[in-house]
Parts: sequence; structure tokens; C-alpha cells
Amino acid sequence: MSNDNVVYVGNKEVMNYVLAVTTQFNEGSEEVILKARGRAISRAVDTAEIVRNRFLQDVEIKDITTGTEEIEGEEGETSNVSTITITLGE
Amino acid sequence: MSNDNVVYVGNKEVMNYVLAVTTQFNEGSEEVILKARGRAISRAVDTAEIVRNRFLQDVEIKDITTGTEEIEGEEGETSNVSTITITLGE
Repeated sequence: MSNDNVVYVGNKEVMNYVLAVTTQFNEGSEEVILKARGRAISRAVDTAEIVRNRFLQDVEIKDITTGTEEIEGEEGETSNVSTITITLGE
Repeated sequence: MSNDNVVYVGNKEVMNYVLAVTTQFNEGSEEVILKARGRAISRAVDTAEIVRNRFLQDVEIKDITTGTEEIEGEEGETSNVSTITITLGE
């Protein structure tokens, strides 16, 4: 699995990520992986749904997994954040 | 599949939903289904992660599916919202 196929979903407007995914598929990728954490998880799901419903009808969600990452705050305290990985494929 | 096993995740603090899921399992359910839409999707993932990491180590995520629902606004306009369904089981 090449990292080239990973799109990290953050706080930008959702269409940025939709465009990134669509471009990857149009350039020949057979699989694109969306990764997000925390509040951006909802946006990653939006991205997957918009891509498959509006832009690339042949693309489907192959797999969705979740996880937990420990992040360190500015003062050294740790907290947990949820993550999601959505695998899209043709 | 009984609707009794469904926990709808909304805008409350995440521990409310963790408690609801944990209670269902402790009362004998073999499967609990989390449902959320829009921004609450992140909270549904948090709920699943907290339940399986901190409260019920035997519980795992069996399945995650996403979808799109059309919702009608106050003035009759429609917009799309993403949904998630997370199936937890022992």
C-alpha cells in the first residue's frame, strides 16, 4: 500500500477532499484511503459519501476501521482521540 | 434485529452514550447498534472506541456502514447529511 493514495481529512471545506480523492482515482489509483481524527471524522464520512454518490459511481467503500490515538497537549498532558480510516476502491 | 438495541448518538456529552451502550450489554444484549448523522458521527466513533477500550474489552466493532439521508429544511429546501451505523458485538 503506497502512502500516495492517502488523503488526510482535516478542517478545510469538504469539497477540497472530494477533489483530492477524485483526482487520485482519475490519475489511475485503484484505491484511495481517507484518514481523519477527532471532529474531522464526520467530514471524512461526508467526503466518502459525496465521492461515491455524486462524482464516481463506480467507487465503493471497501472497508472502514476506527482506532484511538494518544495525543500530547502543550503542557505534557495526554488525551485520547478517535481515528477513522475509510478505504475507497473501484 | 430489535430496535431496542439501537442507541442514537446526538449532541449530548459522549459518556451518556457510553453508559447507554454499556447498560445494554450488561442487560444481556449480544449486539448494540450506534446510529448518528452529521457532526454527531465523530461522537458515535468516540462512543464505540471508549466502550471497547475502557469499559467492555470483550466487545468489538463488527461492522461500520455509512449512508446519505436527505433532510428537509424549514423552508422546504433539501440537503444531504451523512449517516453512520456502527454494530458492536461480543
